[in-house]
This record gives sequence, C-alpha cells and structure tokens, in this order.
Amino acid sequence: MTIPEPTGAHAAWLPPLAFSAVGSRRVFAPGAGVVRDEVVHACARHGGRLADVGEEADLVLALTTAEPLPAAARAALAGHEGAIGEQSYLLARRDGVTVVLADDPTGLLYGFFHVVRLGEPAFTAPRTTEHHRPAVHRRMLDHWDNIDVHPVMGQVERGYSGGSIFWADGAPRDLDRVRAYGRLLAACGVNAVAVNNVNVHATEAHLLTDRLGDVAAVADVLRPYGIRVHLSVTFASPIALGGLPTADPLDADVRAWWRETTEQVYATIPDFGGYVVKADSEGQPGPFAYGRSHADGANLLADALAPFGGVVHWRAFVYNHRQDWRDRTTDRARAAFDHFAPLDGLFRDNAVLQVKYGPIDFQVREPVSPVIAAMPRTRLAVELQVTQEYTGQQRHVCYLAPMWSDVLGFRFWGDDGRDVAALASDIVAVSNVGDDPYWTGHPLAQANLYAFGRLAWNPHLDPAAVLDEWIDLTFAPAGDEPRRTLHAMMDGSWRTYERYTAPLGVGFMVRPGHHYGPDVDGYEYTPWGTYHFADRDGVGVDRTRATGTGFTGQYPPPWSQVYESLADCPDELLLFFHHVPYGHVLRNGSTLIQHIYDTHFAGAEEAAQTRLLWDKLAGSVDADLHARVKERLDEQVRCAGEWRDQINTYFLRKSGIPDAQGRRIH
Amino acid sequence: MTIPEPTGAHAAWLPPLAFSAVGSRRVFAPGAGVVRDEVVHACARHGGRLADVGEEADLVLALTTAEPLPAAARAALAGHEGAIGEQSYLLARRDGVTVVLADDPTGLLYGFFHVVRLGEPAFTAPRTTEHHRPAVHRRMLDHWDNIDVHPVMGQVERGYSGGSIFWADGAPRDLDRVRAYGRLLAACGVNAVAVNNVNVHATEAHLLTDRLGDVAAVADVLRPYGIRVHLSVTFASPIALGGLPTADPLDADVRAWWRETTEQVYATIPDFGGYVVKADSEGQPGPFAYGRSHADGANLLADALAPFGGVVHWRAFVYNHRQDWRDRTTDRARAAFDHFAPLDGLFRDNAVLQVKYGPIDFQVREPVSPVIAAMPRTRLAVELQVTQEYTGQQRHVCYLAPMWSDVLGFRFWGDDGRDVAALASDIVAVSNVGDDPYWTGHPLAQANLYAFGRLAWNPHLDPAAVLDEWIDLTFAPAGDEPRRTLHAMMDGSWRTYERYTAPLGVGFMVRPGHHYGPDVDGYEYTPWGTYHFADRDGVGVDRTRATGTGFTGQYPPPWSQVYESLADCPDELLLFFHHVPYGHVLRNGSTLIQHIYDTHFAGAEEAAQTRLLWDKLAGSVDADLHARVKERLDEQVRCAGEWRDQINTYFLRKSGIPDAQGRRIH
Repeated sequence: MTIPEPTGAHAAWLPPLAFSAVGSRRVFAPGAGVVRDEVVHACARHGGRLADVGEEADLVLALTTAEPLPAAARAALAGHEGAIGEQSYLLARRDGVTVVLADDPTGLLYGFFHVVRLGEPAFTAPRTTEHHRPAVHRRMLDHWDNIDVHPVMGQVERGYSGGSIFWADGAPRDLDRVRAYGRLLAACGVNAVAVNNVNVHATEAHLLTDRLGDVAAVADVLRPYGIRVHLSVTFASPIALGGLPTADPLDADVRAWWRETTEQVYATIPDFGGYVVKADSEGQPGPFAYGRSHADGANLLADALAPFGGVVHWRAFVYNHRQDWRDRTTDRARAAFDHFAPLDGLFRDNAVLQVKYGPIDFQVREPVSPVIAAMPRTRLAVELQVTQEYTGQQRHVCYLAPMWSDVLGFRFWGDDGRDVAALASDIVAVSNVGDDPYWTGHPLAQANLYAFGRLAWNPHLDPAAVLDEWIDLTFAPAGDEPRRTLHAMMDGSWRTYERYTAPLGVGFMVRPGHHYGPDVDGYEYTPWGTYHFADRDGVGVDRTRATGTGFTGQYPPPWSQVYESLADCPDELLLFFHHVPYGHVLRNGSTLIQHIYDTHFAGAEEAAQTRLLWDKLAGSVDADLHARVKERLDEQVRCAGEWRDQINTYFLRKSGIPDAQGRRIH
Repeated sequence: MTIPEPTGAHAAWLPPLAFSAVGSRRVFAPGAGVVRDEVVHACARHGGRLADVGEEADLVLALTTAEPLPAAARAALAGHEGAIGEQSYLLARRDGVTVVLADDPTGLLYGFFHVVRLGEPAFTAPRTTEHHRPAVHRRMLDHWDNIDVHPVMGQVERGYSGGSIFWADGAPRDLDRVRAYGRLLAACGVNAVAVNNVNVHATEAHLLTDRLGDVAAVADVLRPYGIRVHLSVTFASPIALGGLPTADPLDADVRAWWRETTEQVYATIPDFGGYVVKADSEGQPGPFAYGRSHADGANLLADALAPFGGVVHWRAFVYNHRQDWRDRTTDRARAAFDHFAPLDGLFRDNAVLQVKYGPIDFQVREPVSPVIAAMPRTRLAVELQVTQEYTGQQRHVCYLAPMWSDVLGFRFWGDDGRDVAALASDIVAVSNVGDDPYWTGHPLAQANLYAFGRLAWNPHLDPAAVLDEWIDLTFAPAGDEPRRTLHAMMDGSWRTYERYTAPLGVGFMVRPGHHYGPDVDGYEYTPWGTYHFADRDGVGVDRTRATGTGFTGQYPPPWSQVYESLADCPDELLLFFHHVPYGHVLRNGSTLIQHIYDTHFAGAEEAAQTRLLWDKLAGSVDADLHARVKERLDEQVRCAGEWRDQINTYFLRKSGIPDAQGRRIH
C-alpha cells in the first residue's frame, strides 16, 4: 500500500517535511503494515533507509512479538514486562537508539506518529521508557453526513466543509481521500468513525442492510489505520427496512430482526464498531412510542451487538422540542438528567450513553452536563462538537481545545474527585470534515480536529501546547514568527468568540435554523426551550432551586451550591443560572450591562486584530491557504461587528443604560 | 365546448344551483360561444330551453350585431345608441323580458354572469337600461407559479393552495382545470393572467422562447373566457436565452433580440397580453447594471410589444434589500417614490408601472403608496395581494376586500380629488389559487379571489355586499342563518387579523423567510429595511420631515400634513409614521401600550368566536368543506393566541407597564 496523498487535498498535519527526522535515518521496522509503508515513504523522500536485521539503527519500530528484538528494544522493555496493551506503546531512547514498541499494529502506528511529532528531538537526548496509553478506549468522530443532499441542510448536517467525505452521488466517494483521512486521524489518535448522520433519512437507513457494502468499502480503507466504523441507525429500522408492524424493543420479532440484521453486518464487516442512535429526539423515532424506556431501547441494540463485541452509542439528547415558551417550569437543561439518571444501572455493558458536554446544545459556554456525574453504573461517552455549529461555522477562527480541556478536566465533586475524562469510557465529537481541499473549510479549523484527537487520547494535555504541536506540524517550515503569530491568533480565539456573542453563558441568540450570526430574540418565543428572558430590568435564566427551575440541584456539591449562589456563581455562567438585573455587579467588578458592552466591543476588536495578524503572514504561508483564511477572516470581522452591534443595541434599547465609555451604540 | 366541471374541484361561486333562475327559463341566445354553452348547460339541468328566433323569451343574451334583435332588445338599446364598448354590456328588463346586450362576446359573458348573480330577481321587477363598464381596462392576476418546485418556496412562491394550477411535472397541467379557472375568473370579471412567477428562474425563462408552446396551450384555453395571457420574463433574457453578451436596454442587438423574440410570441399567440418584469429587485437583473434607468428598461420591452398591442407591466418594487439596520436615514418606504417619481413622463404609453398598494410590502395595514399620486403622466397598475402572504397564509380567515376598498377609494388630494381607482389604468393582484380542490387552500379564501375581481371591475362596490354576493352564490342553498353566520365570520376578519398581529401599521414582526406567525424582532436587525425600533420607552418609525426620514413629504397635502402630525395621524397608521412613547394617548383615548394589550386580547378572542360560529354551521354546509375550514380555524385560533402572547409579552418586557385590566401576560 502506498501513502495516500490525494490530489488536491491539503496535507494538514502530515506534510512531507514533518517526516524529515524519521525519514533521514536508518529505521529498523520489521513486519509489514502501515508503519513500514510510512517509513519507506519517508526514507525515499528524505534520504534514510530501512535497516536490516542486526544492523545498527537510529530508530526501532517493532511489535513486541517481533524476533529478534534489537538490544535497545529489549532494554527499553526492562521494567515493563507486563502487556503494553491495546493501542498503546513504549517510547524510549537509550544508547543512541530511539525505540517504539507495541503489542499491536495500531499501538505501533501511534508510537510512530509520536516520533513524527517529536521530530529531531526524538533523536537527541536520552529518554527513559515512557508508557503511552490512551485515556479512553474509544476516541470517535460522528459524521453527520447524508448520502443524499438535503434541500435545506445540504449533504452534511451542520457541515461547513463542502460535501461528505464518505458519500457522493449516492455511493461511496473517492476512497483514496477516505484513506488519507484515516491517516490523519491515526496521527492524532482517533480510532472510531460513525459514517452517517444521526438523523437517519430514508436513503441512509439502507446502509444497515442492502447498502451495507458501501459501509464495508469504507471500513476496509480505514481498518489499517486502526479505525473502526460505526453506523447511525434509525430505531424504526424493523419497520422501515424489515417490514415489521412495530419497532417495540420488547417484541420478539423486533429482537430477532435486530439480531439477524446485526449478524449480517458482522458477516460483512467483522470488526464493525456498532450503532449510533438518536431516539425520541427532535422527531426521530424511539422507544417512547411503545411505552418503553430508553434502557429498553438501548439494550435491544446492545444485545444484538454483544456477541460480536459491538457497542451501541445511545444519545442522551432527549428533550421536549415542542415546549411552550410561556411555561417557565419546563427547563430543557433538566431534560437529559430527568430522562436518564433514573435509568442508571439498567443499561448493558456495551450500551454507551452519549452525553453532550453541556445540558443544552454545544453552546460556546455551558456548565458541564450533570448527567455525567449522575450515572456511575452506566458507560458514558462525552460528546463534543468539532464542527463549529454554534461557534462560527468555520468562518470564524475559534480554537475550541481550551473549552474541551475545561470540560474534560471538570471535577463534579470538587478538587479531590474524578474529572469528567475519568468518568467517560468514550470521548466522541461531531466531525468538521468534508470534501473541501482543506478538509475543514477554514484551514485553521484543522487545529480543532487535531486537538480533539490529541485531547481524547490524553485529556490532560495543555491545549496551548497542542496548538503549537499542530502549528509546528502543519506549518513546519514557517519559522518562529509565523508560529508566534498563529499562536496569538488562535490560542484565545474561543474566548474572543465568546466575548462578541451571547453573554455570560446565556446561549443561543443565533438566527433560527442555520444558527449563524446574531438574532437575540430568534429563539425567545419558540418551542425549542432556549430562552434568555431579557426584559427592561435584566436578563438570564433562573435555574436555582430557591426560585427557579431547580436545575442547580442536578449537580452534586460543591457545584450545586456554587451555581445556586448569585454571589459565588462564576461570571461566565452567571446568566445560565440566574436572572440578573443590568446593574448587578459581577465578580469581576463590572456591572452586567457594562460587561456586555465592554466584552462586545473588545471581542469585535480582537477579531479585527486577528485579521491584522494574518495579513502579516502573507508571503510566509502558502498563498492559496492565505487567501482562503483571509476571506474567512473578512467575514469573521464583519460578523463580529454585527454581533457587537446587535447585542449592544438590543441591550441598550432594553436597559436604557448608556455605555460608561460613551462609545457608539446604534 | 362543454362547461368545465373538473373532477375533484370545488364549484366555488359557480355551483349548478346558481344557474337555476337562468336555466329554468326560455333564453334567446343567438350566435355561438361560451354564453350559449352556459345557457344550454344550465337549461339541461334546470328545465329551461333555448328560444327560437321570433319566439317569446324570458331572457335575451345577444351581441348588438345579432340580427334580428328581439323587440325587447331593441327597446333596451333606445337611448344607448353609441357603442356599448369592449367588455361592457347593457342590462335591462322591460315587458317581461330580461335583456343583456354587448358589443363583444366578453361583454356578453360578463352580462350573462351578472344575471346569474342576480338570480330570480333578474326576472321580476322591471329594470331600466343599465350600462355596465369595467372601471379599468385590465383586471389581472399575477401567478407566482414556477414550473419547477423550488426547494424552499415550493412550486408557487407565497402559494398556500398546493401546486401550480398551470404547471405540473415540467409541463402544462390539466387544461380542463385551467378552463374551469378561466370560467371562475370571467364570472368575477378578471381578464388577464400572468402565468409565471415574477422571480423568473432558469426553467421558466424558457417560456418566452422554446417553451412558448406551453403558454399558448394555456392561452387557448383561457381565450374564450376573455382572458389574455401575460408572461413574466427576466430582464436578462437576451443573455440567458439569446446568448448575447449584454442585456443593456440601449444596445442595438438587445433591442433587436427583444423585437424578434416578441414577434415570435405574437406569431404563436396573437392576443398575447404582454410581459411582467421584476427588475433590479431582490436580486433580479435589471437596467441598473448598465447604468440605465428603469424607463429605459421598461421602454425597451414596451417598444418590442407596441406593434402588437401588448403591454409591459414594470414593477416599482425596487429597494435596497441589503440595507444596514444601523442606518436610520435609509427608509425602504421611500424607495419606490425616490426611484420612479423622477421618471414620470418618460415611460411609453404601453408601459404600465405596477405599484404595490403600500410603500413596504403587502402588510395588513399600510398607507397607500405615494407613488400612485406622483406619476400623472405614467400608466399605473395598483398591485394588491390576494394570496395571504402576510395576512394568514390561507390558514386564517381574512377577508381582504375592506382593505382593498379603502386603498382603491383613497383620495390623495382630499375629498374632492380623484381616488386611487381613478388614477389606475390596471388593477392587478397576486393570485391565491393553486391545484387545491378548493382552489385557495382555505375554502373561505375564495371570497378574496372573487372580491378582487368584483372590486377591480367596480372599485366602489361595498365589500360587505360583495361578500354577501359570494356567500349567496357559493352556499346558495344554505339559507339565512348560514348566510348571517358566514357574514359575521368574514366581514370583520381583516380587522380581527390586524388586531392580533403587528400593531398600528408598524408591520412585519413575522418570522423571517416564510412570514408566518409572530417574531417581533425577526426582521429588526436584518438588511430588509423593515424595522419597528421598539425600545424600553416606545415603538414605531419616525417618517416625518421634521425629525424622521421625510417619507411624509412624498404625499401631497392634506395627507403630508396629516401623517406628519402626531395629533392628526390616524391611529391605525400611527407607528408607521411616528416613534411613540408607550404612554402616548391615542385618538381613541387609550394609551399606546394599553391599546396594544387590548387589541391583542380582543383579536385572539375574536378568532376564537369565529371558530364557535363555524362550529354551529356543521350540518348546514358540505361536510368535507366544513372539516377543511374547521382544521384551518383551529390553527388560526392557536396562531392568534401565539401572536397575542408574543406581542403582549414582548411589550410588557420592554415597557414594564402592566395591563390595566390585570389579564395574564406571560
């Protein structure tokens, strides 16, 4: 197999130069497979070569089962006699030899890419043996891709990077491109992909049965990169595909249908990952129609998958999307907990409850979903959103890793307790990839895809360091100045985006439907449960136990008390938890209204500064890439100004309180 | 030809029973044509018969050229020796004979339907000769129909009655249905139809050239009913269809292309009506691209049409739809006047400037467009909207004739001046018809179509009387109680709709895009130029000369002064012209805020009462029709409640002023 470098696709974080340190050396890589292909390819380009058995090498890349292992490898193993483990590897450097050892090819591949990331330093200082293991077993991307182009949503729901990378014209797309995608994912640690939209439409439902061959073709291409393929299925499949009169999870025929259908899936794709299900959510079918619980529903699929080692990812995104805005007692933030927490302990071991990181829907700032703390006897996946649905739709620079780092490091029970990453069995995200030449529409949005993989592998990585890693790999020859510039543009971009959009955790305020750009009241009187309740006196949602919806009570202490308290609640979440007068003084010393004005002027100004920084990089980076980013930055600056003006005008009209600095508010 | 009664289509205002008075008598109807067909058909059903020459008859329906005319007809002509005129007729009853005389078949047809409308009274009391002439030469319906189904707009833009009545599956639809439509239109006086959307998409552009045969097929079917067919064309046709590099109206090749293309049109459809053009409007191409004026653009087409007696309807709906909401100096209401008034006198005689009745866009209440007063040397068409885009989308009962009557009777120069109807050469409306079995989605919306035709024929008819006419024809056998009930449901429905939607002429406040249901701020921060500027102190648009956009100055006195004055401005237009504090006392004695609350509670309650009235008609009207209307009324009641609550809540949150009656506002 050759290294995939499809025509017209950007090399992203795997440009040829990234392999110079490896490729210019003597590499001992026994066995076959992707790692050896990579080494051969890198050496051909950079002048190195494969070392023979017994020959001295600068780099050893070997499975622990390889015989004979070079001395340096045997030395690295000393003190690590137990299994290294699936997807894991040892990394060491002693006696002038850099050693990567793994029990399985995927672990070896991860180790190889570790050396690529390190570059020249991998071959300089000694390194005592390091044991690298992923924090969670499954690091997964959900593609909201359709086969057919939806007239409103396009082919990829909430996709901002062109068409689907998997499907085109009703069939699998260019598999070379999929292979290149697999390589990029392996290089950042992703090991599972769901290949179709969780909103399963008519055509895509057939991927489970008569179009299964299409899925198998994708699986074949991704398998060498250690990536298993999952499929979103509709809960109504027994009706839609099987011709049964019901999809009742307790019905014997339904159970038999799923069992037999799943057998067929595994007969075709032996390492198939499993199913992803959005049930009883935003109009999708589910077990409620039959008076069954979501545990019944998930277990139905889990039982069908269990004999083959598959899992079902069952999304906890269940809420009333036909809520009455007049009804102040219903709180969408409560819904997932209210639905699922009582079911803890009822799910099968291979049913993974997939929980969005926040209780609402992928906003730029939300408290961490209390469901994650509430289900100790249930396997949980934390769901992030790499695609920037609510964070600028890949027209805005918004490096999301700092937010994910906050989420994954959040400790429900205070400083001594386990963090979110430790509570999760899987870390999942909605992909931002499409058939765009830059993969992600906005070239800088590649950093989010990369950082997701890296943080899913190790949630305790410093997001700023991951950013630099990505910059160094992607813009390898750019030098210190471009590196500093890119870092300055991106590292704080999430907070910049937060500053010029909906304030202090209140969320939404986006245009209904497409969710791009400001519309303060856009969702205020809708059935979607996403309100801010701004009036002439104040703004925010009272979710306290004392006077509000009681959502704060879904958290264990200390956070239940912290969020309940107007005085203690962190500023950035204040309006998520409290309805606050415009004159309220924040913990940062500013009044609420002045904070809104200040952050919105500042955020829009920061966007403008970001564009200035990028202008300075003209000539230092590829001209096409520069032009693409420039065009997006122009739109970001325009849109940030629009956010600033709409938010500030809205709140000036409501509050009547002028800006203390006398700046122009329209 | 037989009388068209297509299967599955509702008889509307031409049910068989409506013909009983005519059809049960002896009718002398010399000559052939549609009138004779109608008579034969009616007699076959109701027991009458055609009278022979010289035989006594109860009804004479004859062209003035018929020989010999019966004595009663000759007597009716006495004192009316001049031409009766095109599309006109004499109606008389003397010596026990009812007489209709006309110079042309269309006039005779209109006279025949007049007798049908009269029913039995046409054959009782004597009637001195009446000369009936249409107020305007052209009474036209614009169909915003596409051949192709638009993914967002559907097949009919702003259509709420199913698919197009003209086009299906890329070709002309069932021509029997079109024929039946022509018959209905003739029976209310419409004599021109534009068969495709003013937003001319790619497929529909070809109706002008290679798909002209499709238009001819429709024209053939409508011709016997005195209806001429017009076509919406794109200004870019010379480029899109002719392969020219430009559509510059002063370019010789462009002029030649239009001339030759139009020759072909008339070679195929000798009585073709002409072109309808939306140019430089909401993205449509136009003369501005070439630095030419709209007179240049319109005259280009007028010159091509002139040799054949055709006209171009050139829409005045030109405004900046990419306006900056921050810019308070730009006022969309001014746009049509600012664009077109300076061009008065520059348009050809066969160029008709088509002006929407209000300066914005078909709102439930607008002042009459000042353009209509500003162009005495230009032929003008007043454009109404029968399709209920902003008035309930045929889910709400909203009988619009009272509004049209107000518009057509409006006198710009005070009580002594000419009214709008006298200033117009054409009265045009956007059709509300589709392939729905009831023609108009909401069966009661048929009344709007009927009333449009009747008011276009005679703008001084009492809309309440026209309503009764429609009720009597359509529900002929229903009796007095149903008649009273329907009248009560419909006569005030426009004002009811006004009460529960955007207050006092401020307009919009609808959901962007589809324009159904409330969204107070939906257009407030958009580029569309439709704002209300509500803040914590007040609401409304200052369009005065003194402190606002100066739009009031586009009116001649007295209205320029009346609208300018906060004290004199009619309540119902107050917020169109003034930005007013919530505590402002209206001419009706209420404060603005209390008026908003009161009207919204009242309007929603009236909608509920309307439903109660309809419930009482169960059993008195056709069951299917009753069910259809019932379903729509349920939605109207729901939606009216939604309007009431969103508007009231919005203004309570903004103003902080409670309802004086203490009713619940959420």
